[in-house]
Amino acid sequence: MSHHEFYMDLALTNAQTMKGQTDPNPLVGSVIVNDQRIVGIGAHMKAGEPHAEIHAIRMAGESAQGGTIYVTLEPCSHHGRTGPCAQAIIDAGIRKVVIATLDPNPIVSGNGVKMLENAGIEVIVGIREEESRKMNEVFNKFIVEKQPFVTLKAASTLDGKIATHSLDSKWITSPDARQDVHQLRNEHMSILVGVGTVIEDDPELTARIPNGRNPLRIVLDSKLRIPMESKVLNDGLAETWIFTSQYYDHQKRKELEDLGVSVFETSGEIRVDVQDVVRTLGEKSISSLFIEGGGTINAAFLEQGLIDKVVLYFAPKLIGGKEAPTFLEGAGFDLMKDAVELTDGEFTKIGKDFRFTGYPLKQGADK
Amino acid sequence: MSHHEFYMDLALTNAQTMKGQTDPNPLVGSVIVNDQRIVGIGAHMKAGEPHAEIHAIRMAGESAQGGTIYVTLEPCSHHGRTGPCAQAIIDAGIRKVVIATLDPNPIVSGNGVKMLENAGIEVIVGIREEESRKMNEVFNKFIVEKQPFVTLKAASTLDGKIATHSLDSKWITSPDARQDVHQLRNEHMSILVGVGTVIEDDPELTARIPNGRNPLRIVLDSKLRIPMESKVLNDGLAETWIFTSQYYDHQKRKELEDLGVSVFETSGEIRVDVQDVVRTLGEKSISSLFIEGGGTINAAFLEQGLIDKVVLYFAPKLIGGKEAPTFLEGAGFDLMKDAVELTDGEFTKIGKDFRFTGYPLKQGADK
Repeated sequence: MSHHEFYMDLALTNAQTMKGQTDPNPLVGSVIVNDQRIVGIGAHMKAGEPHAEIHAIRMAGESAQGGTIYVTLEPCSHHGRTGPCAQAIIDAGIRKVVIATLDPNPIVSGNGVKMLENAGIEVIVGIREEESRKMNEVFNKFIVEKQPFVTLKAASTLDGKIATHSLDSKWITSPDARQDVHQLRNEHMSILVGVGTVIEDDPELTARIPNGRNPLRIVLDSKLRIPMESKVLNDGLAETWIFTSQYYDHQKRKELEDLGVSVFETSGEIRVDVQDVVRTLGEKSISSLFIEGGGTINAAFLEQGLIDKVVLYFAPKLIGGKEAPTFLEGAGFDLMKDAVELTDGEFTKIGKDFRFTGYPLKQGADK
Repeated sequence: MSHHEFYMDLALTNAQTMKGQTDPNPLVGSVIVNDQRIVGIGAHMKAGEPHAEIHAIRMAGESAQGGTIYVTLEPCSHHGRTGPCAQAIIDAGIRKVVIATLDPNPIVSGNGVKMLENAGIEVIVGIREEESRKMNEVFNKFIVEKQPFVTLKAASTLDGKIATHSLDSKWITSPDARQDVHQLRNEHMSILVGVGTVIEDDPELTARIPNGRNPLRIVLDSKLRIPMESKVLNDGLAETWIFTSQYYDHQKRKELEDLGVSVFETSGEIRVDVQDVVRTLGEKSISSLFIEGGGTINAAFLEQGLIDKVVLYFAPKLIGGKEAPTFLEGAGFDLMKDAVELTDGEFTKIGKDFRFTGYPLKQGADK
């Protein structure tokens, strides 16, 4: 590991720790080094508050003069709510800037580097680039496409079943895996289930971890069958939005709205139109969506090409059953060659279970 | 790595290379070291031929005198077809014996060590024990239970499907994974499919790899529907046995037997009784069985507790489909708590795909 990587790793660690609390802003960390000594650290903590570099520069004070700053994302060059960080770096007398990755927004990407270089500062780009890019995969999509980054999550046996033929599903995975899911809920701005899950399990859909933040809860409910006593409607732990079809129960909608619940009509005739759901979330600045639906909902999103990432928990178990539900149903693709391929796939052991993460290859996408 | 591990690894490598050619004997390798120099290597190559230690002692000649022998399995103490290896070690003047694992057969386990120690030879047991035990997992079961070691193999998408809803299945996994399957076929004495596979795919079921040996081919065929022109009946690449139910076509049986194919009746009334299949194979000294069936056959073996190991290839793809077949069907277990748990589970990347290996936890078993 080089010196650069050593300091950038610290910046990444601090950035990563803020997961869930910076939306809609990206995770950014920064470290200032002078005379082989760390003189300042910083991370972006909340939208509207100072960027990572500003925190680090303030901490370093006069020690920033002549030093090197490490920052996981290209310093901004525009006058936003907090002033351009590139200018603050110049003003602090910093001599060298080491950047993990450029700004993902093509409109401004590279501008921060130019501003620094024009001021005679040495700039190095690309240290821990992959790690930084992956850390902000949600932000990187949203800032460009204005659509939420959509993660499909499922937990199944190794034979792909999410319940037995008699629909028993408690529990498939171990507590460690379920804890990991709470971490992922915390990292997303919204979480989505079908009304069937609400009727059967009456879940809270909250992030029960240290420093956890509960995501916005989204229920797909084509006929507005959701029980009025459901926890997601009454517990006040997070907001709940309901998406419905053209043929919903108008009286029920009024009751739900009287309870303070937002109900969104989609163009779907029998089922909720999932394209409409994603588009609406984008318009409402919801930058990420975590899908914890069943096989039918999962298939609807996948077949529409709306999934950016899949996270699959596999318990090392076999349950069998021709009628047992799998995590991906619907009609399915006709031919094996039309299957959705997943890139950058990897398995990680989580307690007794295994977690797969991968990214659906999209037609025309650059992945 | 210690000196002991270094030499034992060489013995293991030589033993492993003989996979598929020593049945029904175990894989065993041996190295003799004298004065910090390897003076002999050996491996068991074929039943009826010398054991690994004998090959190594012959190669070492007089240099064995005063040396150390490494052997992956406890030297035998009985007068079999080749005389007791422990005595040959004593006669060669070897001073120290390093053993990976004791003989798995409880009737003779430890006897070789005793014979050596009684002759004043220093014996160390347990170097690379786990590796040696796993290498001979088939033998270790068969020698004790006289029943074949049964491996269930499946290749599916990540959502557990072995074909699309329209039954297209070519190809799910990549050439690397399919090559790996040929390796496993070579490591088993027999391979089993259902008659449906023979009718649809007309496979050869051979081990197409360097030094590959074709396993005995077993077809489950409750009504004897197998086409007389099938490759497995005519290509002469390996023997083919057919297991049927009580209600088979007697005329067809005669035709098959005229072709030189063995037909075994089982006690099953509608389906082939899989317990009978495994029992019969054991009686015929078939020490291992590799199941490449579909979801129904797989479920029959699993539900009867007949599976010793599962090898699952997952392509990083999603296909979906409520009607798409999975690799484990049948009725399935009623409750999630009754699922078959797999121990020692691990994922390995094979080309673009992932291979899971694990061992079903059996009630009353010591795993």
